[in-house]
Amino acid sequence: MEQSFLAYLRGRCRSLPQVSVGIGDDAAVIEPVVGQQIACVDQIIDGVDFLSDQHSLGDVGFKSMAINLSDVAAMGAVPTSALVTLALPKSNATRIAGEVYEGIFEAATQFKVAIAGGDLSTYDGPLAISVTLLGHVPAGGAWLRSGAGEGEAILVTGPVGGSIRGRHMRPNPRVELAAKLRELVQVTAAIDISDGLSLDLDRLLAKSDVGCELKIDTIPIHDDAIELSKTSGRTPFQHAWSDGEDFELIVTMSQSDADKVLATDVGATLTQIGTTTSRTGLWKLENGRHERLSPQGYVH
Amino acid sequence: MEQSFLAYLRGRCRSLPQVSVGIGDDAAVIEPVVGQQIACVDQIIDGVDFLSDQHSLGDVGFKSMAINLSDVAAMGAVPTSALVTLALPKSNATRIAGEVYEGIFEAATQFKVAIAGGDLSTYDGPLAISVTLLGHVPAGGAWLRSGAGEGEAILVTGPVGGSIRGRHMRPNPRVELAAKLRELVQVTAAIDISDGLSLDLDRLLAKSDVGCELKIDTIPIHDDAIELSKTSGRTPFQHAWSDGEDFELIVTMSQSDADKVLATDVGATLTQIGTTTSRTGLWKLENGRHERLSPQGYVH
Repeated sequence: MEQSFLAYLRGRCRSLPQVSVGIGDDAAVIEPVVGQQIACVDQIIDGVDFLSDQHSLGDVGFKSMAINLSDVAAMGAVPTSALVTLALPKSNATRIAGEVYEGIFEAATQFKVAIAGGDLSTYDGPLAISVTLLGHVPAGGAWLRSGAGEGEAILVTGPVGGSIRGRHMRPNPRVELAAKLRELVQVTAAIDISDGLSLDLDRLLAKSDVGCELKIDTIPIHDDAIELSKTSGRTPFQHAWSDGEDFELIVTMSQSDADKVLATDVGATLTQIGTTTSRTGLWKLENGRHERLSPQGYVH
Repeated sequence: MEQSFLAYLRGRCRSLPQVSVGIGDDAAVIEPVVGQQIACVDQIIDGVDFLSDQHSLGDVGFKSMAINLSDVAAMGAVPTSALVTLALPKSNATRIAGEVYEGIFEAATQFKVAIAGGDLSTYDGPLAISVTLLGHVPAGGAWLRSGAGEGEAILVTGPVGGSIRGRHMRPNPRVELAAKLRELVQVTAAIDISDGLSLDLDRLLAKSDVGCELKIDTIPIHDDAIELSKTSGRTPFQHAWSDGEDFELIVTMSQSDADKVLATDVGATLTQIGTTTSRTGLWKLENGRHERLSPQGYVH
């Protein structure tokens, strides 16, 4: 099926100026970027990251792009092109590939990403999609996890928790918001929330060699976390604290930058949830006493 | 296993100047290239492209890199960095990943490629490896399949056929030879032989809208093709004509460039096998008559 499906893809792929030669040669030829290049790869597999008997294959395709777009956003970068490998179950391979690609094209169009290349195989196994995403940042301007200093504001880009109710299949990667933040302020460190707010925050802080004091009641809790708590036996806060796949960003910046950005309409709900500290670990201040919090989330 | 294995990988990955930030952040940060960028992706899967009960996992890892390096060489490009996804069977996942990565590191070291990023999953399925390779070419200088003109020489970079006897697991991608050819002459079109000499030649010619007249007895036949013919019921020539996974290059250039490069020691056996013609299709001249040949090989 590969040759005929690739011919179909060539027809479907929009031509974008960043890719000179796309699908159909031994490799893609991509225009050079200004600044530095960003590259990441993430795969999702039926039975592990989604369930093909529950989720539409279009959503699955969209998600395979979105999780990578979220990583690019977490670097403060602009996405440009993607390469996609599909490992397809032998039965109905062409139909499955077609449906998955509808979601991939939808994400590509929405985020102005060119599909520069790909590979298809059929095999005795579940649907698996691996997407490599390329992008660019101004030289020296990537938002690393390691860049947070002491006494900086910690912000989250939207309410978290309960994404398993459905949002996790249609993530809203914060690509546009990242571009706006870059214009407005100097982000010192960033990470996207894929494994849980507290776990990913802990990773960022550990890389930056700082800790934090959180204002627990400022953490924005998603309606899905409240809804889920009605049946899960856990509190809305517990869902917000540890649920994965929110794909919001955690960003740090100076307090004055935070004040500035919180007073600006950036088209998304930005919330300050705490401040970095020289003392490592996650802490909250309650009744005048510091209490250490335990990061929780999805550990691979 | 992912976090601890990624920590191991970070320790093992050599630091190379082309990658500023490698494994361990949301994405890699890669230095900009001079000219244009090349990107390709190819996956190999247990039971389809290799057999884990017959082939060493180190060879499998090496092959996953080598097939992509061959694509980069076929563009006349210099490889720089790679991103790797592994889908691992749940049982023995860490051991399997470690052994595969030994082969990946071997290829990376040999070809001076940085491992810039990756992803690991465990699942109910066979070992699958997807490698994205990035590289660069001088602006406008990529060797496309479509660049061959009429009356040009067609060369192959080494003997072909019978790779299934073992060579197919340890391909020798023609990265270095491609760089030498770029220095010496103007290659007008190129493709690597992954699906068979005649099939891949036919693809190149079709893209270039030309045909060819082959001197059949000049086609360099590998010893493996001769050996295989003793038991396969096919002739050595049939193996050379249609066997896949040789990973030699087919290149076209002006006859004067071909004469020049054939008179030069380029560290590999270059052989002219024919000439491009305005009449499309593959042809041989026998007893003063043109006879049309049928391309054969591995069709996905």
